[in-house]
Amino acid sequence: MRPRVRLTDAQRLDWLRLIRSENIGPRTFHALLNHCGSAGAALKALPELARRGGAGRPVRICPRADAEQELTAAARSGVAFLAVGEDEYPARLATIDDAPPLLAVRGHAAVLSQPMIAIVGSRNASAAGVKFAEQLARDLGAAGFVVVSGLARGIDAAAHRASVATGTVAVLAGGHDNIYPPEHVPLVEALVENGAAVSEMPLGYGPRGRDFPRRNRLISGLALGVIVVEAAQKSGSLITGRRALEQNREVFAVPGSPLDPRAAGTNALLKQGAIMVTEAEDVLAVLRPIIGRCIEPPNTLQIEDGVPLAEPSTDSRARIVALLGPTPISADDLIRLSGASATVVQATLLELELAGRLKRQQGGRVALID
Amino acid sequence: MRPRVRLTDAQRLDWLRLIRSENIGPRTFHALLNHCGSAGAALKALPELARRGGAGRPVRICPRADAEQELTAAARSGVAFLAVGEDEYPARLATIDDAPPLLAVRGHAAVLSQPMIAIVGSRNASAAGVKFAEQLARDLGAAGFVVVSGLARGIDAAAHRASVATGTVAVLAGGHDNIYPPEHVPLVEALVENGAAVSEMPLGYGPRGRDFPRRNRLISGLALGVIVVEAAQKSGSLITGRRALEQNREVFAVPGSPLDPRAAGTNALLKQGAIMVTEAEDVLAVLRPIIGRCIEPPNTLQIEDGVPLAEPSTDSRARIVALLGPTPISADDLIRLSGASATVVQATLLELELAGRLKRQQGGRVALID
Repeated sequence: MRPRVRLTDAQRLDWLRLIRSENIGPRTFHALLNHCGSAGAALKALPELARRGGAGRPVRICPRADAEQELTAAARSGVAFLAVGEDEYPARLATIDDAPPLLAVRGHAAVLSQPMIAIVGSRNASAAGVKFAEQLARDLGAAGFVVVSGLARGIDAAAHRASVATGTVAVLAGGHDNIYPPEHVPLVEALVENGAAVSEMPLGYGPRGRDFPRRNRLISGLALGVIVVEAAQKSGSLITGRRALEQNREVFAVPGSPLDPRAAGTNALLKQGAIMVTEAEDVLAVLRPIIGRCIEPPNTLQIEDGVPLAEPSTDSRARIVALLGPTPISADDLIRLSGASATVVQATLLELELAGRLKRQQGGRVALID
Repeated sequence: MRPRVRLTDAQRLDWLRLIRSENIGPRTFHALLNHCGSAGAALKALPELARRGGAGRPVRICPRADAEQELTAAARSGVAFLAVGEDEYPARLATIDDAPPLLAVRGHAAVLSQPMIAIVGSRNASAAGVKFAEQLARDLGAAGFVVVSGLARGIDAAAHRASVATGTVAVLAGGHDNIYPPEHVPLVEALVENGAAVSEMPLGYGPRGRDFPRRNRLISGLALGVIVVEAAQKSGSLITGRRALEQNREVFAVPGSPLDPRAAGTNALLKQGAIMVTEAEDVLAVLRPIIGRCIEPPNTLQIEDGVPLAEPSTDSRARIVALLGPTPISADDLIRLSGASATVVQATLLELELAGRLKRQQGGRVALID
């Protein structure tokens, strides 16, 4: 058995401060740990890195007191923070390249190590869609799957409700103390008995529109596959389906009449190659062989403190910044065109990111923010 | 330009008598013409061939007077008989191995040389299904396709009605003077203006249950592809879909809710690889490249009278019959095991068939009828 990996309390506080600081998302967090050697060292280096990246004002670092308060409040609400790399952290979620460094979990954390299947769909669902989602969730729950969804009205809530007994995971777009929509507070209370609610956001955070697509990557990231039950064209559920493909998850869709606008999205997914689902067995036939399969080595962060990397010279930094513009370019091209090493290019990009001047795009391409 | 191929009146009469005789379907007709050299020679040889095949009683040969009467009645009803191999005979239909030797056509025969698409589905159709079939037929008609269907209630009738103006072909399960269902007589009168009704059955023939699946091969045989709009499990429309695959036609299906039993068949087709249709463009994208493609040399019959083939010796015939039983066996195996030539094996099988003792199965395998 490999040794149990666990952050110290001091490390967990540093991790929380770092991920709660300005301009730091999961990918930047990862890059910072690699660059500075530890979250503690990154917190110290942040002001200088951002200044070098050209920040117009000091970046906001999460104060120690705020992080301590969040940890205390979380403990009071029964919320635990799992760090990527720790044993309890959901193994499949750890494989996505923007896995949350800390996942706030309420409920029965053990469900997170069981095989999961996501069921998502329209908020504005039809009665037939709701009924089908319930049946599917019940059947997949009975077959040993934990059902993951997004706690929204309509299909999501139907899937959670039908799998409360067998285990279901609600991925929140906001914090644990700010459940959205508010009428689903009792559903969360019910589902944490055998399942869990998870979030990467601060406890009291109220979700805004852009937080939902961001949250959707966690729904597909946790699961072996995503089933889209009903979805209009250009809906959030389709985004979840697309993210699932990027994450190499199976994508399933339920067909519907061409005259039903709530089936336009699912039919489009089917045309693009999603697997058709008319009963739970369609899903089980695909997932059964995957369950046993070994999960690829997860993209874990270094928990042991490491040695900081060298900083770029003023010269190389200037050369790299000059090559950047509003048109996205790959890091490989930057390395080739600047003649700088990969480490130097990555360090420069990190500085720009911390200064709020860099945007990362699909496929690892980067662009300056005007 | 190749010379116009056309039966003489005497030949057409012989062809009609032969196909209307007992135990003779399109495949036996073809074998007889190859064996005897002409339909006239086949009619003369029939009693002896059937006796050799072990017929318990003389086979019924269509009397000359009956055939003459059918030709006269047909002319009166505006029905023309097209022979496979003649220029007007629908080219794609001629490629299937059980193409009717004579196709009785009423209406505007020129539509039979235009690109055709079949639209079929449940008799017990939903309002949404009917609406969708109409839209599809209108759009495909506007795009230059002739719509083929089976004149049944529900989806078939909707497809015909919506394409009366652009051209539609009704394939009858019975004869031209016995339209089924009777309430569609006015629809036939309307559609023959720009389109056609076709049948392989005698003019006054009233269709029975088994005639519908048999007729379905003509629907798919005429068309580049078959669209199944609504279909329950184990429905006639699914048989049409399956026949279409055997004939190398494209199979399209319209998705529906898993909770709608009228979509169970179409969803099953989609799971098996049918192309999903939610709008006409899905069909056009697949068929446009095929239209221009040359049609493979059709399986035409010899119209010029030929030389009769040698008959099997008593010995070889006995050896071949001994090898046959209720378990289907391929002609290749019979040739190998009997040591007889392919011609002799085929001639013996023909005799047995004419005697009503042989059943031909999918893939050219044969079995004795107990």
